[in-house]
Amino acid sequence: MTPSDGAAAADTRELAQLSTEALREFRDRERARYEALRARATPFNLARGKPSTEQVALADQLLTAVTTPAQCWAEDGNDCRNYYGSPQGLIEARRLFAPMLGAPPEQVLVGNNSSLALMHDVIVYALLTGARDGAAPWRDQHRPVRFLCPAPGYDRHFQICEQYGIEMIPVALTGAGPDMDEVEHLAADPAVKGMWCVPKYSNPTAETYSSETVARLARMATADDFRLFWDNAYAVHHLTEVPDQLDNVLDACAAAGNPDRALVFGSTSKITFAQAGLGMLATSAANMRWFVSRHSTRTIGPDKLNQMRHVMVLRDDAGIWAHMERHRRLLAPKFAAVQEVFESRLGGTGVAAWTRPRGGYFVSLDVLDACARRVVALAKAAGIEMVPAGRTFPDGRDPRDRNIRIAPSFPPADEVRAAVDALATCVLVATTERLLADRGINA
Amino acid sequence: MTPSDGAAAADTRELAQLSTEALREFRDRERARYEALRARATPFNLARGKPSTEQVALADQLLTAVTTPAQCWAEDGNDCRNYYGSPQGLIEARRLFAPMLGAPPEQVLVGNNSSLALMHDVIVYALLTGARDGAAPWRDQHRPVRFLCPAPGYDRHFQICEQYGIEMIPVALTGAGPDMDEVEHLAADPAVKGMWCVPKYSNPTAETYSSETVARLARMATADDFRLFWDNAYAVHHLTEVPDQLDNVLDACAAAGNPDRALVFGSTSKITFAQAGLGMLATSAANMRWFVSRHSTRTIGPDKLNQMRHVMVLRDDAGIWAHMERHRRLLAPKFAAVQEVFESRLGGTGVAAWTRPRGGYFVSLDVLDACARRVVALAKAAGIEMVPAGRTFPDGRDPRDRNIRIAPSFPPADEVRAAVDALATCVLVATTERLLADRGINA
Repeated sequence: MTPSDGAAAADTRELAQLSTEALREFRDRERARYEALRARATPFNLARGKPSTEQVALADQLLTAVTTPAQCWAEDGNDCRNYYGSPQGLIEARRLFAPMLGAPPEQVLVGNNSSLALMHDVIVYALLTGARDGAAPWRDQHRPVRFLCPAPGYDRHFQICEQYGIEMIPVALTGAGPDMDEVEHLAADPAVKGMWCVPKYSNPTAETYSSETVARLARMATADDFRLFWDNAYAVHHLTEVPDQLDNVLDACAAAGNPDRALVFGSTSKITFAQAGLGMLATSAANMRWFVSRHSTRTIGPDKLNQMRHVMVLRDDAGIWAHMERHRRLLAPKFAAVQEVFESRLGGTGVAAWTRPRGGYFVSLDVLDACARRVVALAKAAGIEMVPAGRTFPDGRDPRDRNIRIAPSFPPADEVRAAVDALATCVLVATTERLLADRGINA
Repeated sequence: MTPSDGAAAADTRELAQLSTEALREFRDRERARYEALRARATPFNLARGKPSTEQVALADQLLTAVTTPAQCWAEDGNDCRNYYGSPQGLIEARRLFAPMLGAPPEQVLVGNNSSLALMHDVIVYALLTGARDGAAPWRDQHRPVRFLCPAPGYDRHFQICEQYGIEMIPVALTGAGPDMDEVEHLAADPAVKGMWCVPKYSNPTAETYSSETVARLARMATADDFRLFWDNAYAVHHLTEVPDQLDNVLDACAAAGNPDRALVFGSTSKITFAQAGLGMLATSAANMRWFVSRHSTRTIGPDKLNQMRHVMVLRDDAGIWAHMERHRRLLAPKFAAVQEVFESRLGGTGVAAWTRPRGGYFVSLDVLDACARRVVALAKAAGIEMVPAGRTFPDGRDPRDRNIRIAPSFPPADEVRAAVDALATCVLVATTERLLADRGINA
């Protein structure tokens, strides 16, 4: 079976234009193809944005970066093997990541292995103690507190809101960030205290917020303890020669007279070792004092040894970019495979549209309305693990049931090709069934 | 100056028995001695329970424990360099620490570098989502929520309560744990949701809870979402040949029909690398499900590479005990020096009483009422850094202003000797001043 088999199935590619007879034949061929897949049941995983083993191995120098006691001593004379105040992390590490985060080292905190944990903790501190000194706890001001959630988005962001009873208000994405007319309208509500943003190579739509989007987010009217959760997880994660440019949100907020509005998060999870890397926070000096005062109650400080290892291996911003270029060489062919298969199997069919990411970890696939759950169920039965349909929306509900997130980073390129080809079959089965059902044919 | 100089100063050692003239002479000699100290101003630090550089170096094998990619693969086939579910941590690490924590590996969670952070997170989850599934959030049930706080205790415990507006009720310690009559009386209040316990070699009093204390804590009447925060930070941190025995609180609670009452915390902060080690939680299966369901929202999981390093170096429970024996050889002479100096300078004076720890990190010194702050201020002016007086009590208020915590672990033994000798001088100056003031003499 080659990807072009599907194209041969009809004179026109647009399935909705086919006669019922031709559509039925097309569906039957795809069903037969699907049954063959299910019989083989080759396991594939397109679920999570997980680096491949080759990618994590790019950072294997971390394993031997700090092996002698002498290497454990930081430039400020402290021993990374021992208690060591500095709740913001090693100055060496803060300097290393400052350019990537777009803030001076004094306004950077480098933590343990999870930036999600830092986002969680900001929300918890704001809910229980107020988002700035002197402000009432979010939870005492409004029940429920509300967050704006550009959707589709990152399911783990939404899960934090769900856990703490924060009401999520979905906002449409435009390709250049969220629909700002909608956002400006909604953000005026004083119960709206936060907004999730993955501003570059967004998860899963891969879009980068435009300068206009950033400027409007920075200057719009909000409650004065409203915060942008700027999860810049893919800041240096390009798939093309010329990276997207994202405006510096801290600068934009300061220029707009809202210096404490944004909290910028970053991570090496998809730079060095996922889950054994470093998470970071950059924000205004006032916000940093606020965060550190609360965070120092939670912990004496982060693991500085792992920070030292990262400093030794990545060295500086140029080192990070050079390292990311090696990731790009491993990732780009997998993303190209997705495009090639989708183009060949689904191109022109009118039942699917997908993104062409210039960076990040995901391809976002929209199928006909009311078909996504069925596609994912078919895929699962054929051995392909996908993130559940709807998971990329607040409360797990995709109002049109059409979005599917594809994470092609972990499997080898040939497996990606086979898995996406199988997924395309599932899409064609589910959507032709839907088109036929719309014509009253359910068999 | 030798420690016995002080003894020669009076026929009787009990200062309160001296004539006013003799007491004044004694005070003047100690004042002169103090002025000499202050003129030298040799900096000493007896403030925090920080392992010495020799102690952290005992674990230097961690630096070279995992240096090849092959060593990164866990027994369940997962790669510690990559994302890797298992929010409870590596099974190898849970098995390693299970005996120390007194729970089967299934009921153990091994996290990142801070057990304090795990305690903090349990409190936050309980405040915001309820201490068990189906229970109302603590914060919605009672304002304020209350915690029982055996005092003196660990200042960082109290700081968490302070941050979240939890009212702290101090409870006296008896030498075998908290005054249980008082605890049983107070715990019946439904607003009392938690109790801090450092049950072995307690911080700072060094006492170990007796079997009767543990049994009464396990069976006393409480709100059904009341929790014991069992910070067993010094579980294996002995200073003597024969370690204290502490009953297993999880077993005691289960036997008393309160299986979900206790959360046991442990840490390698004072076993391997402080701040680059591992924190742990052990509790009932139901509590573990409760905790993991919330904690997985905060983070995908802990750094497993550092867990693998610990497994490689410590290997098993016997390995932990052998390692702790090496710590004991470094620590015991420092604690002996404190005893020797205090005995010689303060013994029989009636103005000071101190603990003789069989384990842990602290010596607790009680001086005459209303003298502790003055002693610490004198010490500070002479270059000796101490934890602020009162800090070991809820809200930083020692009602009798008499307790001083001494942490002799970090400096070399000869420095400990000199620092404690200097501290004894400060004690004698402050207390003789107090005795004279009580006789109306303020000069």
